[in-house]
Amino acid sequence: MSESFSSASKKVGLPPGSLVHVGRVLEPVTRITVVDYSKDHVVEHPVLSIDEVLQYKESDSVTWVIVEGLANVDVVDDVGKIFGIHSLVLEDILHTHQRPKFEEYDNHLYIVLKCVMPEGENFNVSYEQISLLVFNNFVFMFKEKTDELLYPLLKQIRSSKGRIRSKGSDYLTYAILDTIIDQGFFLIDALDEEVTSLEDDVYDNPTQDTLHRIQRLKRQLISIRRNMSPVREMLGGLLRSESELIHEHTYLYIRDVSDHSLHLLESVESYRDVLSGLLEIYISNISNKMNEVMKVLTVFASIFIPLTFLAGIYGMNFDYMPELHWKWAYPLLWVVFITITVLSLFYFKKKKWL
Amino acid sequence: MSESFSSASKKVGLPPGSLVHVGRVLEPVTRITVVDYSKDHVVEHPVLSIDEVLQYKESDSVTWVIVEGLANVDVVDDVGKIFGIHSLVLEDILHTHQRPKFEEYDNHLYIVLKCVMPEGENFNVSYEQISLLVFNNFVFMFKEKTDELLYPLLKQIRSSKGRIRSKGSDYLTYAILDTIIDQGFFLIDALDEEVTSLEDDVYDNPTQDTLHRIQRLKRQLISIRRNMSPVREMLGGLLRSESELIHEHTYLYIRDVSDHSLHLLESVESYRDVLSGLLEIYISNISNKMNEVMKVLTVFASIFIPLTFLAGIYGMNFDYMPELHWKWAYPLLWVVFITITVLSLFYFKKKKWL
Amino acid sequence: MSESFSSASKKVGLPPGSLVHVGRVLEPVTRITVVDYSKDHVVEHPVLSIDEVLQYKESDSVTWVIVEGLANVDVVDDVGKIFGIHSLVLEDILHTHQRPKFEEYDNHLYIVLKCVMPEGENFNVSYEQISLLVFNNFVFMFKEKTDELLYPLLKQIRSSKGRIRSKGSDYLTYAILDTIIDQGFFLIDALDEEVTSLEDDVYDNPTQDTLHRIQRLKRQLISIRRNMSPVREMLGGLLRSESELIHEHTYLYIRDVSDHSLHLLESVESYRDVLSGLLEIYISNISNKMNEVMKVLTVFASIFIPLTFLAGIYGMNFDYMPELHWKWAYPLLWVVFITITVLSLFYFKKKKWL
Amino acid sequence: MSESFSSASKKVGLPPGSLVHVGRVLEPVTRITVVDYSKDHVVEHPVLSIDEVLQYKESDSVTWVIVEGLANVDVVDDVGKIFGIHSLVLEDILHTHQRPKFEEYDNHLYIVLKCVMPEGENFNVSYEQISLLVFNNFVFMFKEKTDELLYPLLKQIRSSKGRIRSKGSDYLTYAILDTIIDQGFFLIDALDEEVTSLEDDVYDNPTQDTLHRIQRLKRQLISIRRNMSPVREMLGGLLRSESELIHEHTYLYIRDVSDHSLHLLESVESYRDVLSGLLEIYISNISNKMNEVMKVLTVFASIFIPLTFLAGIYGMNFDYMPELHWKWAYPLLWVVFITITVLSLFYFKKKKWL
Amino acid sequence: MSESFSSASKKVGLPPGSLVHVGRVLEPVTRITVVDYSKDHVVEHPVLSIDEVLQYKESDSVTWVIVEGLANVDVVDDVGKIFGIHSLVLEDILHTHQRPKFEEYDNHLYIVLKCVMPEGENFNVSYEQISLLVFNNFVFMFKEKTDELLYPLLKQIRSSKGRIRSKGSDYLTYAILDTIIDQGFFLIDALDEEVTSLEDDVYDNPTQDTLHRIQRLKRQLISIRRNMSPVREMLGGLLRSESELIHEHTYLYIRDVSDHSLHLLESVESYRDVLSGLLEIYISNISNKMNEVMKVLTVFASIFIPLTFLAGIYGMNFDYMPELHWKWAYPLLWVVFITITVLSLFYFKKKKWL
Ligand SMILES: [Mg+2]
Ligand SMILES: [Mg+2]
Ligand SMILES: [Mg+2]
Ligand SMILES: [Mg+2]
Ligand SMILES: [Mg+2]
Ligand SMILES: [Mg+2]
Ligand SMILES: [Mg+2]
Ligand SMILES: [Mg+2]
Ligand SMILES: [Mg+2]
Ligand SMILES: [Mg+2]
Ligand SMILES: [Mg+2]
Ligand SMILES: [Mg+2]
Ligand SMILES: [Mg+2]
Ligand SMILES: [Mg+2]
Ligand SMILES: [Mg+2]
Ligand SMILES: [Mg+2]
Ligand SMILES: [Mg+2]
Ligand SMILES: [Mg+2]
Ligand SMILES: [Mg+2]
Ligand SMILES: [Mg+2]
Ligand SMILES: [Mg+2]
Ligand SMILES: [Mg+2]
Ligand SMILES: [Mg+2]
Ligand SMILES: [Mg+2]
Ligand SMILES: [Mg+2]
Ligand SMILES: [Mg+2]
Ligand SMILES: [Mg+2]
Ligand SMILES: [Mg+2]
Ligand SMILES: [Mg+2]
Ligand SMILES: [Mg+2]
Ligand SMILES: [Mg+2]
Repeated sequence: MSESFSSASKKVGLPPGSLVHVGRVLEPVTRITVVDYSKDHVVEHPVLSIDEVLQYKESDSVTWVIVEGLANVDVVDDVGKIFGIHSLVLEDILHTHQRPKFEEYDNHLYIVLKCVMPEGENFNVSYEQISLLVFNNFVFMFKEKTDELLYPLLKQIRSSKGRIRSKGSDYLTYAILDTIIDQGFFLIDALDEEVTSLEDDVYDNPTQDTLHRIQRLKRQLISIRRNMSPVREMLGGLLRSESELIHEHTYLYIRDVSDHSLHLLESVESYRDVLSGLLEIYISNISNKMNEVMKVLTVFASIFIPLTFLAGIYGMNFDYMPELHWKWAYPLLWVVFITITVLSLFYFKKKKWL
Repeated sequence: MSESFSSASKKVGLPPGSLVHVGRVLEPVTRITVVDYSKDHVVEHPVLSIDEVLQYKESDSVTWVIVEGLANVDVVDDVGKIFGIHSLVLEDILHTHQRPKFEEYDNHLYIVLKCVMPEGENFNVSYEQISLLVFNNFVFMFKEKTDELLYPLLKQIRSSKGRIRSKGSDYLTYAILDTIIDQGFFLIDALDEEVTSLEDDVYDNPTQDTLHRIQRLKRQLISIRRNMSPVREMLGGLLRSESELIHEHTYLYIRDVSDHSLHLLESVESYRDVLSGLLEIYISNISNKMNEVMKVLTVFASIFIPLTFLAGIYGMNFDYMPELHWKWAYPLLWVVFITITVLSLFYFKKKKWL
Repeated sequence: MSESFSSASKKVGLPPGSLVHVGRVLEPVTRITVVDYSKDHVVEHPVLSIDEVLQYKESDSVTWVIVEGLANVDVVDDVGKIFGIHSLVLEDILHTHQRPKFEEYDNHLYIVLKCVMPEGENFNVSYEQISLLVFNNFVFMFKEKTDELLYPLLKQIRSSKGRIRSKGSDYLTYAILDTIIDQGFFLIDALDEEVTSLEDDVYDNPTQDTLHRIQRLKRQLISIRRNMSPVREMLGGLLRSESELIHEHTYLYIRDVSDHSLHLLESVESYRDVLSGLLEIYISNISNKMNEVMKVLTVFASIFIPLTFLAGIYGMNFDYMPELHWKWAYPLLWVVFITITVLSLFYFKKKKWL
Repeated sequence: MSESFSSASKKVGLPPGSLVHVGRVLEPVTRITVVDYSKDHVVEHPVLSIDEVLQYKESDSVTWVIVEGLANVDVVDDVGKIFGIHSLVLEDILHTHQRPKFEEYDNHLYIVLKCVMPEGENFNVSYEQISLLVFNNFVFMFKEKTDELLYPLLKQIRSSKGRIRSKGSDYLTYAILDTIIDQGFFLIDALDEEVTSLEDDVYDNPTQDTLHRIQRLKRQLISIRRNMSPVREMLGGLLRSESELIHEHTYLYIRDVSDHSLHLLESVESYRDVLSGLLEIYISNISNKMNEVMKVLTVFASIFIPLTFLAGIYGMNFDYMPELHWKWAYPLLWVVFITITVLSLFYFKKKKWL
Repeated sequence: MSESFSSASKKVGLPPGSLVHVGRVLEPVTRITVVDYSKDHVVEHPVLSIDEVLQYKESDSVTWVIVEGLANVDVVDDVGKIFGIHSLVLEDILHTHQRPKFEEYDNHLYIVLKCVMPEGENFNVSYEQISLLVFNNFVFMFKEKTDELLYPLLKQIRSSKGRIRSKGSDYLTYAILDTIIDQGFFLIDALDEEVTSLEDDVYDNPTQDTLHRIQRLKRQLISIRRNMSPVREMLGGLLRSESELIHEHTYLYIRDVSDHSLHLLESVESYRDVLSGLLEIYISNISNKMNEVMKVLTVFASIFIPLTFLAGIYGMNFDYMPELHWKWAYPLLWVVFITITVLSLFYFKKKKWL
């Protein structure tokens, strides 16, 4: 079974606020990177503990703290203590089975969503939970994996191209969300390829393996939709919120991300509909093929069984069978054989069985 | 696979506001035409750059700028700079995978939708994204293709028939939307023909090709619905907006377009329902035909297999088989053969297998 | 294909307000009848042009103008000019593919709906578009056909039975809507009969023609629902409107019509559900029948094929076959034949194949 | 066809307010019973006409008038005249195809719903329309049948057990609704039994009769749902109404009935889902069985057909066939026969066809 | 039939407020335990009657009364009398077929829900109704069973770990709801295992037992969803309520439970979708297998039937059959046999039937 919808039951029974990482450990270590920038400067360096981040707290520049890997629970604990985050939020960051959502707190926002990406060859899908804590000049980002997802965004910041360097933490938040949701377009491309290839198989060479692949893709689509669908809600909440942390002009950008998210979701829905039709085509095709097989059998049997019967008759050993002694009986019988065969073939031809 | 729901992932990673044309290039060059009219005059001529349009900016006449072909990104860039359009809107104009939508800005409206038309013979569907920027006396229109879509509207303006010459840019916007949405009626006509022809095939001559066509039409309907359905929302937004750019009396006209759009969508939904039933009919029909084949086989086999057995018995070479020496044995056996055959035929007749 | 959801694309490209009749011409001529009544008098006579109606305009009596047949566009044009109707409304009256709707104007209401009736024998459905323009003391009615639909209502008015003669144009509107929607009850009766007959066929005699009828009925139900469903919305709009043209006490009557309309729609939905189950029953039944056929074949073949083999053995011409010379070989072989047959029959009996 | 969703079209064409009984006549006569009670007294007696009820009109006691059987239209007419009921309400009482609903009038409430009960053996369902007119100290109840439905409630009133004797007509209304809706629990019990029995049949002995029963039950569930579903709405309307006829503390009781109604409806929905799965199981099961039949045929045919061919060869009469004259040819051939059979059996065993 | 949606009809006809236990008796006796705690103390002891609880009524500490087993109706009756609970609430506590819901009363809240847990091996599901009465410093809990569900929570209270000891009865309520809903995660794990195992069966070894298990699981999912789905509503009601019994900071915790509940429900929905696809895969697979069987039969029959006919011809006893006397006739015939066989095999190979 390719996609499991099961949730870890590992934490059940612990008091709320007990910080434990729940989910598959995708990275053995936790790496922290700080990016601090304003219109005029960019600083980017790794740090070993959250304490080192405190120096950027008072400045007017935007500080982006990227935490990759959730194995080290202390990092999340420290962020919670130093920045005053509710223990339930810290829990959600570490529990990587969250439904995408947006929550507004006194001096910060909490955003959690899944980055859904294609992976490797046979339409595998990878899911990575990403949490954001958005303060006035600070953005904390918690990722499950160390990957190249954010390279283009970091490059933009470093090169001071685009308008990001002159904007605040709300625009950075938008840019991060945009980067994450844009991965969906790659997914849709991979999905299109997979469905096309499946469709070809269903028509040309429907085997049991085709069935496997249809069911597997179905499950993946259920899972993709389940992770993408609440993102729309989440962005809607963000758009409706009147948080002071998000400036007027940033709403337009978030609305654009929201458009993309809707577009992706509708694509996924469309492929679901196509796939659901594909299984019916598969069954129809198998029925067609069985019909063909049955026709061959029926034509063969219907022609030769009566002929064999006729031959059987003249193989009988009765003393009194006048035909056996006729001179032209044998050639005549061949005429009968051929006539029956030709008439049968005509009949089946007319029935379009041949 | 006829219809792809995939979206270009080409732009992913660029900063917002980077103007790049995303989508299939349908026209290699970009043509700009200006139509300026009032109750008393009409001017219509091609221009080479947006600067030439500026002369009409201050006048009270209505100016309609038609941009055909999106290959030349500079044209869109110029419109943005000269008329103060947000870079996200410019991006949407160039990214031809937009979901139909309506957005209200300070001094203009942004409308984007798809023109869905039948094309060529075998129920092919063409999609063209059309964007409108509606100012007080100005309407910018961006089309992907150079075609004859707007000829009837241009003729109306030139001939001063209809009320369009004495109305403002809001009425022009209505007239454009009406022209685009009316294409859907041709589509429904073509769709009706295709479904009727498919239905005939399913009953009279269900082949694997019929399956192909059903699945292909299903995908097209999914795609058509996906492009038409948000138009209703978009027009609803336009009707609810209280923009000063749209006069009171124009709302009635937009409501009329909205009625047509709803009518078209319901037609598409109806054909979806019909088509979804068609596959079930197909499968039933194949089952029926297999039943027929099996009956022929069973009737032949059930009659001749026992007869052949009987003939086989009297072909045995036992020394002591009294029947072989009876004088009337052979004719008697024929009586038995014929009796068995007749009884079987009666039995199968009664079972309605013949 | 019995029901087409296609819409005339004939008018596409004309400026709005061009009065052209769009739809099948159901009547070659246009007949106008005027019914003027109050508590104390009734006048009913045909007129040749709308001008003749003007005499009733100022009086306090209720005037009902019935226009049957839409071929003569001038009649609609005249009503528009004399009574000040918006050209889009006139267009809708002539374009007989309207979605049922209700619109409120300054001094009148516009109501359009479909009269859905059974017609002839084999569950044919006829659709007639009926438009109403409701003024303070005037009701214009536009029908596509000349039929007996309104006879009972006219009889009520003439005979001064019922309360209609002492009420205004709002009550007349109610009475007309009631008459139209009540036709649906005849339709449901005809539908019930057709579904019952189909159900019998599916169980007792499922042929390809049964399939045809199921699919045909499915399409008709889609079409019926599509024409009936918006009537509920339309009546809801009428009930929510606070038009001065409808008196307080008339709302109760309109709510009653609305109840009927809901009742009819739910009946149609129920038959849709029943019909959708019927196709599955059909397929199950065909499978059942094929099973039966296969069992007969298998039983025959499984019994006689081994026997024929045995007979074949003793038909061989080997020089050394001791059994051939035994005295009781032949009768013994018959014992073997019969034993095999009886055991096989027992076996198949136990398997419930017989 | 067990359940008809058709509505009587008998009344179509009559003016509104014409009192005619529409529906199957379930009782030939109309019986009227009066129950008048307060904390201190109970009076219960039959009356012959509504006039006899007038004596209770002014008193403070609660008066419950039970009208059983709707054949006598005059009774309804009298209630209308004496208590000032709108003619449309009187019509609804007599037209027993009402959708359950609640309507508020100046000095009374009108409630109509269906009592849905199991009846007899094979999961038959009976529907009885019950109408209530609720005044300050008066409740009129119109039932189609004379049955024992209300015996427990009458017993409560007589015995002064429960709190009913010290409460008003609103509490009586609640008690009646509770009694009616509680019948649904018996229905669900009967339904559970029927579905369980059907499920057993589908697995153990799927015949064409099973199909009949599935389709019949499906129709019944559609009909049950259609009659139960609007009750929820109706009770919701009652709860939201701020009628002075219903006291504050009675709302809690009505909410309880509403809970039960929701519970019942969800049970019906659940059985619908189960039933819809059952047909798919049926089809799968039939396919399984056909597979089994085909395997038997194929195994028999595949083994004996080659053997028979071999026997046929040595039954040929060529002059030069050396094998015929070998001494050990015949026993050797038996070895070949047995070897082929054993190998075939192994092969089919390996394929799991045996 | 594994899951019954039927409701006890045992109580039907009793006056409201009659306290009778309705449901399966899961515990023969009723055990009452009191847990009283504050920041500084914990007391936990069994009591024999509700009177013993009264001593904790006035204190500021939080008192949690756990009633396990509902057989002893008097306990519920006593709580009702002493704490002033409405008789309809007491009824709901004893009637263990409640739909999860939340009700607000003057000085307390009533919450009822189902604890849904996996039980034993073969994906059995157990349902336990749990009712809560939440007062300012008091929480009454009514459970159907005596089990270890609450052990972790009791351990937390005893050990003063977590923040529970310093919070009020609202936080205790949250902690109880959290404990109950977390059981769903175990259920989802068990469900995942069952579906995976079923999926393997469908592909590798589809038998009639697989069908049984699919249908059984389907029913369980319907039942699980029915019990889980209203919990979301219930928690929504709790969140929207502005009861003084729930402190501001507790809402965050309840929102967290609500997230979990939504997560669980979406998992169940996902498995429903997967399961619904599984039956289609099953049917496809059976069709595939039948195709394979038919191909074997057809190949065998199509090759050997013509050969047998040929052999039959030369077994005939005509006096004049020249071939019988040719010297090389017999070997030549073998060449013909082998040629036909090889050509047939090539043909079927090309058709991919082998
Ligand atoms: Mg979907
Ligand atoms: Mg879908
Ligand atoms: Mg969809
Ligand atoms: Mg769909
Ligand atoms: Mg769908
Ligand atoms: Mg389906
Ligand atoms: Mg489906
Ligand atoms: Mg649809
Ligand atoms: Mg649809
Ligand atoms: Mg539809
Ligand atoms: Mg539909
Ligand atoms: Mg449908
Ligand atoms: Mg559909
Ligand atoms: Mg429906
Ligand atoms: Mg329905
Ligand atoms: Mg339906
Ligand atoms: Mg339905
Ligand atoms: Mg359904
Ligand atoms: Mg349906
Ligand atoms: Mg289906
Ligand atoms: Mg349902
Ligand atoms: Mg349901
Ligand atoms: Mg359902
Ligand atoms: Mg459902
Ligand atoms: Mg379902
Ligand atoms: Mg359904
Ligand atoms: Mg779902
Ligand atoms: Mg679902
Ligand atoms: Mg589902
Ligand atoms: Mg689905
Ligand atoms: Mg389904």
